[in-house]
Amino acid sequence: MSDHRIAPVVPVAAHEPPYYAVVFTSLRTEEDTGYGATAERMGELVQHIPGFLGEDSARTPGGLSITIAYFRDLAGIEQWRQNAEHREAKEHGRAHWYERYSLHIARVEHSHGFQRADR
Amino acid sequence: MSDHRIAPVVPVAAHEPPYYAVVFTSLRTEEDTGYGATAERMGELVQHIPGFLGEDSARTPGGLSITIAYFRDLAGIEQWRQNAEHREAKEHGRAHWYERYSLHIARVEHSHGFQRADR
Repeated sequence: MSDHRIAPVVPVAAHEPPYYAVVFTSLRTEEDTGYGATAERMGELVQHIPGFLGEDSARTPGGLSITIAYFRDLAGIEQWRQNAEHREAKEHGRAHWYERYSLHIARVEHSHGFQRADR
Repeated sequence: MSDHRIAPVVPVAAHEPPYYAVVFTSLRTEEDTGYGATAERMGELVQHIPGFLGEDSARTPGGLSITIAYFRDLAGIEQWRQNAEHREAKEHGRAHWYERYSLHIARVEHSHGFQRADR
């Protein structure tokens, strides 16, 4: 729906551990109807979750999609998991958009970042 | 270098926790020389690390690249981190291929997978 290449997209920064990462790696079906609008809506909604730190996503054309949402604590993840609109989107996703996926919830113990100096 | 769309690419399965995820999210420079061959070589090398469970990657054209490597324990991650050829590749990456990146090392505490039944 939206073209993320319009804005400069940068990786979510390395925060001070501990924090949590929700890794969602999926292979999509060929059905795309409604996906863009729902993804955009979820991207807005999640920003209201307390302790939400940011989200990175990438999709190889014809290949894997990966989205990683970062949260300060498990309470935020639980609140997002129970959000009614999010639950409905996930159910619709399993029925229509996802061929398969893996979800990993992980506690970040170490992190660092890099940025080129020459610009 | 290789076209990953030739083979059916599926997400690394949800393993029994605990295990570890190394999340590497990057924005690349426009310099691509040698990247494909090095990425392919690293993808081969990492498979020899004890406890390596698999690797997912995705890249949005013009946008973010995300690679997540899964390991059974921190010892495997440390061994991979210290691998001489890997260190050389990372140094070359910082000098040429990466505009910026974030690295998050995280302990997976919960995971699950989904696969469509209707095929």
